[in-house]
Amino acid sequence: MQVSKFIGFDEALRFVVENVRPSKPETIPLSEGVGFVIAEALQARVSCPSLASSLKDGYAVVSKDVENASDGIPSRLRVIGRMEAGTGDRLSITSGHAVEVTTGAPLPEGADAVLAVEFTHREGDEISCYRDAGPGRNILAAGADAALGEIVAIKGTRLTPPLVGLAAASGVDRVSVFPRPKVSVLATGTEIVAPGLPLRPGQLYASNMVTLRSWLKQFNMECSCLIAPDEAEAIRDAARRAVEVSDVLITSGGAWKSDRDLTVNVLRDMGLELLFRRVRMGPGKAAAFGFIKDTPVFCLPGGPPSNEMAFLQLALPGLLAMAGLPSAPFSTLEAILTEEVSGDEDWTQFIHADWVDQDRRRHVTPIGLTSRLQSQARATALIRIPEGTTNFRKGEEIEIQILHRPMGLC
Amino acid sequence: MQVSKFIGFDEALRFVVENVRPSKPETIPLSEGVGFVIAEALQARVSCPSLASSLKDGYAVVSKDVENASDGIPSRLRVIGRMEAGTGDRLSITSGHAVEVTTGAPLPEGADAVLAVEFTHREGDEISCYRDAGPGRNILAAGADAALGEIVAIKGTRLTPPLVGLAAASGVDRVSVFPRPKVSVLATGTEIVAPGLPLRPGQLYASNMVTLRSWLKQFNMECSCLIAPDEAEAIRDAARRAVEVSDVLITSGGAWKSDRDLTVNVLRDMGLELLFRRVRMGPGKAAAFGFIKDTPVFCLPGGPPSNEMAFLQLALPGLLAMAGLPSAPFSTLEAILTEEVSGDEDWTQFIHADWVDQDRRRHVTPIGLTSRLQSQARATALIRIPEGTTNFRKGEEIEIQILHRPMGLC
Repeated sequence: MQVSKFIGFDEALRFVVENVRPSKPETIPLSEGVGFVIAEALQARVSCPSLASSLKDGYAVVSKDVENASDGIPSRLRVIGRMEAGTGDRLSITSGHAVEVTTGAPLPEGADAVLAVEFTHREGDEISCYRDAGPGRNILAAGADAALGEIVAIKGTRLTPPLVGLAAASGVDRVSVFPRPKVSVLATGTEIVAPGLPLRPGQLYASNMVTLRSWLKQFNMECSCLIAPDEAEAIRDAARRAVEVSDVLITSGGAWKSDRDLTVNVLRDMGLELLFRRVRMGPGKAAAFGFIKDTPVFCLPGGPPSNEMAFLQLALPGLLAMAGLPSAPFSTLEAILTEEVSGDEDWTQFIHADWVDQDRRRHVTPIGLTSRLQSQARATALIRIPEGTTNFRKGEEIEIQILHRPMGLC
Repeated sequence: MQVSKFIGFDEALRFVVENVRPSKPETIPLSEGVGFVIAEALQARVSCPSLASSLKDGYAVVSKDVENASDGIPSRLRVIGRMEAGTGDRLSITSGHAVEVTTGAPLPEGADAVLAVEFTHREGDEISCYRDAGPGRNILAAGADAALGEIVAIKGTRLTPPLVGLAAASGVDRVSVFPRPKVSVLATGTEIVAPGLPLRPGQLYASNMVTLRSWLKQFNMECSCLIAPDEAEAIRDAARRAVEVSDVLITSGGAWKSDRDLTVNVLRDMGLELLFRRVRMGPGKAAAFGFIKDTPVFCLPGGPPSNEMAFLQLALPGLLAMAGLPSAPFSTLEAILTEEVSGDEDWTQFIHADWVDQDRRRHVTPIGLTSRLQSQARATALIRIPEGTTNFRKGEEIEIQILHRPMGLC
């Protein structure tokens, strides 16, 4: 493959998502499982509930006994005992009798309905019933939530909190999931300094590295960080270490074509097979992707907006796909442009923007600060101008990716 | 206050959010800060960049020297040296001279523009310049991203990944944040069994506890779990332990009015001061809220939908407020109802629902499965029918809370 040419953004994204492989499944405790995608169907190991049980505090009755009960003509029944949730005592009734039950209590044999306590009046062992209760009323049948052996979630399902709850109720205790990949971020550049160290004139703190690490953290992925100067040997050593300890290597900087931009060349010497080296997207055109043996490698450019955009639009979708998740990291919504935006006919353009809901309409405004870092930090959305399209006028609707809610909560 | 009466849902939510206190700020490494709200403004400790620097690989020039340069009539300049990012060497130029610069390199003294390498042709020490480059072109001024002492984020800002990056670039290394509260979840019920243990007939796995723990995990909050049978002493001991180790206590079960529903009464004996005990909301009416000394306590009902709904609509907003976050856990959007829904005039009703975007319209369908646990697990949204409203017809627009995207990613 001729990788030195530019490829279109959509094609690049497809290359990434189709070529990364799902992580090897791991078994973890169910209670740690929220957010993971399951690698095997979840099957109920018990019936839930294990016995038919009452949904209310009240009286277990034979429904026929109360079918004509009303305020004016109550039915009268004799209470022969009481059953509570979790105690294991079982009673049985026949017509004319009732058993007091608490919420969650199993039903006495012979009962087919529960009359809620608020529709009864008790004196001694007698109750007056002021309402009917048809067969099954206020009863949760055995296995209603999950029957022994029932599939409660198919392979590929993402574990949401209530699904974890349903699985727990079904007796599931451990789950096989696609783990999220462990990532190494290697920042290259002789001028780059790790946060916390002193800064000499002309040097820069490794803000790209910190930004990527924070995105990874937000998506619950582990990240190791490394910094190497623009020297082949240092980059090679760091990359070798990264490939050993991580599932994915992301490099930052040195991905363009000047003679100092060593990274891609050093990695190719190490066996990096590239699937693409340049993408018709802005910012982020100098994004390369390939594999060293089985390890996916993303070489991202060093300019802050290029670095972050190539990460969000190409690398992050690949990482999510490895974890079995939908590859699009962000929700998309339609919003009305408050000013014109333009891109290039043969290029996919991403623009930092700010969105707001006002008067039941959603508006989006491009952010054009001189400081690129401040534009990134201010953005709550990204406008995408796809290849083949150039201008969108003020007032037009455009699709935006929601990075966070304006108030700051994801 | 007379707490035995029902209060409206909106009032209950206001009581929670207005009465919890923000967590005591803690200082943490910036690299761990994403998602936290800062308790102090972030101030730049260095200028970024520290020196004016080149945004391109190219040649630093005196802009006047190239103001008439074109393909037809190139300007010719003598290259007197090369400057790279991070090496610290400084040169200076006067008219007629240029210095080769790499991206990120500081500018030589005397230069006021950088001409990108693609608009030049070099032979030996001479370059031909084919384009102009006005003053400032391709130069990032010193302090353009952040000037020493500049406030880069005000108190109360949520740290997003690129804001963490900007802070790192500004020399910030540690941040003061409002920590997320540590929560104890105490599940009560003699029939309740911890996942992983064997289940006897009539017993239930503690699915509410697991669901709440998973929600807390999804919102990055630590959670300790405890189970106590319906016995005053056991509940008291567990609650005492929970209050010692946690910032917030959430109980599950035993919050309604039957004689077995001990939890609230036991906690009141321990000093619980209630702000409300019942709420005009469904599911979730038996939700109580108050304080044991300074510790917020939420007593949630034991029915699974009531438990989760009272947690999501009342407890979780309080927990988020303690962390300085917006109290609404979920985005709201408008969606078109695919069938009629109804509530009660004097009641706030929440309905599990499923939403989908189709043909550029968003539709929402109530989920009415017999199994409450399955309805919860299937829901991707919640419909809210506010007090004072009863019916919404098929085809009407209604506000929904987005629990997750239908494809399963938050």
